[in-house]
Amino acid sequence: MTEQQQEKENQDMKEIKGGVTAPEGFEAAAVEAAIKYKDRKDLAIIFSTAPCKAAGTFTSNVVKAAPVLWDQRIVEQSESVQAIVVNSGVANACTGEQGMAVCEAEAVCAARALGIEKESVLVASTGVIGMQIPSDRILKGIQKAASEKTGSLQAGLEAAQAIMTTDTVPKQVAVSVEIGGKTVTIGGMCKGSGMIHPNMCTMLAFVTTDLHISRELLTKAVKADVTDTYNMISVDGDTSTNDTLLVLANGLAGNPEITAEDDDYRTFVQALNYVNTALAVKMAGDGEGATALFETKVVNAATKEDARILAKSVICSSLTKAAIFGHDANWGRILCALGYSGAQFDPENVDLYFMGSNVEEAHLNLLNLSQQAEQTQQVEIETEMEMGCKNEKLHIFGNGTAKDYSEEDASRILSQPRVTVLVDMHMGVETATAWGCDLSYDYVKINADYRT
Amino acid sequence: MTEQQQEKENQDMKEIKGGVTAPEGFEAAAVEAAIKYKDRKDLAIIFSTAPCKAAGTFTSNVVKAAPVLWDQRIVEQSESVQAIVVNSGVANACTGEQGMAVCEAEAVCAARALGIEKESVLVASTGVIGMQIPSDRILKGIQKAASEKTGSLQAGLEAAQAIMTTDTVPKQVAVSVEIGGKTVTIGGMCKGSGMIHPNMCTMLAFVTTDLHISRELLTKAVKADVTDTYNMISVDGDTSTNDTLLVLANGLAGNPEITAEDDDYRTFVQALNYVNTALAVKMAGDGEGATALFETKVVNAATKEDARILAKSVICSSLTKAAIFGHDANWGRILCALGYSGAQFDPENVDLYFMGSNVEEAHLNLLNLSQQAEQTQQVEIETEMEMGCKNEKLHIFGNGTAKDYSEEDASRILSQPRVTVLVDMHMGVETATAWGCDLSYDYVKINADYRT
Repeated sequence: MTEQQQEKENQDMKEIKGGVTAPEGFEAAAVEAAIKYKDRKDLAIIFSTAPCKAAGTFTSNVVKAAPVLWDQRIVEQSESVQAIVVNSGVANACTGEQGMAVCEAEAVCAARALGIEKESVLVASTGVIGMQIPSDRILKGIQKAASEKTGSLQAGLEAAQAIMTTDTVPKQVAVSVEIGGKTVTIGGMCKGSGMIHPNMCTMLAFVTTDLHISRELLTKAVKADVTDTYNMISVDGDTSTNDTLLVLANGLAGNPEITAEDDDYRTFVQALNYVNTALAVKMAGDGEGATALFETKVVNAATKEDARILAKSVICSSLTKAAIFGHDANWGRILCALGYSGAQFDPENVDLYFMGSNVEEAHLNLLNLSQQAEQTQQVEIETEMEMGCKNEKLHIFGNGTAKDYSEEDASRILSQPRVTVLVDMHMGVETATAWGCDLSYDYVKINADYRT
Repeated sequence: MTEQQQEKENQDMKEIKGGVTAPEGFEAAAVEAAIKYKDRKDLAIIFSTAPCKAAGTFTSNVVKAAPVLWDQRIVEQSESVQAIVVNSGVANACTGEQGMAVCEAEAVCAARALGIEKESVLVASTGVIGMQIPSDRILKGIQKAASEKTGSLQAGLEAAQAIMTTDTVPKQVAVSVEIGGKTVTIGGMCKGSGMIHPNMCTMLAFVTTDLHISRELLTKAVKADVTDTYNMISVDGDTSTNDTLLVLANGLAGNPEITAEDDDYRTFVQALNYVNTALAVKMAGDGEGATALFETKVVNAATKEDARILAKSVICSSLTKAAIFGHDANWGRILCALGYSGAQFDPENVDLYFMGSNVEEAHLNLLNLSQQAEQTQQVEIETEMEMGCKNEKLHIFGNGTAKDYSEEDASRILSQPRVTVLVDMHMGVETATAWGCDLSYDYVKINADYRT
């Protein structure tokens, strides 16, 4: 694809209001099930009026939560899926046979209430590891949710709120794009916050679309996309037992079914990437205790894998994260993190920059703006686009030593809610971006006393 | 070696007072060079009256500080070494050609003042990355230190104090052992605190001995020992640009030179392991902001490498470290960290215990006791040994779910200054121990504002 073509496709894709209920035929509901939290909604269901193709990626952790084991089987074996049940508060991990029994009970209960098969129900949980889910409460909650589900955007937002744990904001996004002469919509929601270091998978993220696509290609697109989205974020280096990304496609947009890797497929892949990047960045920026989104972009690396390893090493460095929290331009820690990443390079040839918002980053600015807009229910992306175009790039390190930069300028850039480090390796043409957050007192506070 | 034999050898080995000046012929001095800190000693030298065999291991970080590059060459190429110059405050890392020139100037200056060759001088630095060392100040300091060096234990302690950065206590240890009919002494000092995640090497650690041993076997013993000592500790996952372990052996004990892997060699290896373990554990327990030493012992693992990977994964988990800080028995995070370590296992077969001090752990208790004793200048190891013998072992997890333990008991164990997690894999016979510390507000505080 030429850059011109890509630009054209970008123009065709529009971010729209809403989340998982934005695509045709998807409904949601959220209820108070009192599984662990009191006086808040803690159980959500997502339902499709038509049967869906499903794809998913799951945690690489050897210790897998019961819902992960359930979903892996369903995604692999079920021909169609129509519902997802998600609770917050208890992760249903390290819960043995009782945990598996609860998953099955959830599926049976949801199937009966929704008039579908239990093999069409996916389940997900997030919260404390090791506690059992009180089955009476979750089953009652599922029945209530099934009776209350609607296709409104509000229902999608409430579902995104119900799955939050230490998240401070609900996270959702939706885009529309033209495929096969039809308007196809993709919506998604996720929760993140702590124990975020996805590996071949993600934390809880749910993406819905009315696209018509073969199961094989849906799976292929989803698996390929996680590498540069969810797998490039980290809050604390801890890969969860529950990481799950589920994507449901119900075909109600009416486009001719995508069965080959053609232009339609590529358009979908690009839109899916937009949604997954948006959700992943929202997770990173709302990491436990975070005061800033911390982004590292590596350019001109020798290989794509090197670029990824280098970028991720920087955003994972506790020392660098603490320095960002302190708005302290302690760039030696960034060099250090690049150095122990495992990628080979000559430090004398590396250039390091701190960046403010600029044109190149408009994509991500859009995400931030739309997130803010979400709070006020106003999404005016085209007009907001100008706001992201201030260009600021401070050269910090080059030729093996510190550049003569102003500490004041550096500290100002590091005080922004989004801090970008640009690393130019001068070794090749490959690029990767990773997203994390700073390390604050509140991360320690939240996690020293999470269970109480 | 049978257990009985090993016990006998343990009995022959004695921890004694002092550090790097404890062995015959080693002298030290510490002075105020005002390199970065004011009103404290920040420059130390270690000097041997006789030429030494030298061995060393260094950081695996691609970004290597100038002193690391200097020392690698000296250790590889010089037939004998007689002095080490160490400064704190500035790391001399990411300092380009100017940084290398300062290293050479330090060596030339020390050589002239001590009457030796510049190729017999090793240098080491620790502190802020990216700043240049003011060469006039360090050279003046070296001259002063060379004129003040003595073989007193006090001089060794002052050297250990001078190399501290965010360390809260000086770290040294010494043992004596009989080899070839002679009393051989090994002394050591180190500094740790932050950016501690050694890889094939360590932070700054210096070990001296009056043992007579071939350079080849000294090197072999040193390289083998770091795997289970310095490479098994972590404070924050950040592998430094400056990690250095240097071991000097001057032969003044008068034992027949060790030239084969015989009983004498094994006795030395065991004593060296004691010293390196003691220094490594002291570093972990005094990690930046630490309120507790956090130890994880994995037993009955399938392979030695698995045991190491599993133990280290737990002590590196930010979430687990924060839970230890909060005295919160959030054991799910430990299971989670085992699960993402990369080692394969069945969670249903894992047993997890929290442990208080007990007989098995007497070795490490000794280290702690001797550290306390160091403060009061009283080392009475034999009589203190009983103190370590309370046995407390709380079964937390087994058969895939939580055991019915008392949260109160768990919290009490987790409130001790040394917290031990015992993981029984039931898969083989291999064992490994890793040491870290908790994650506290003070870690964030120290590192959000380290440079000012």
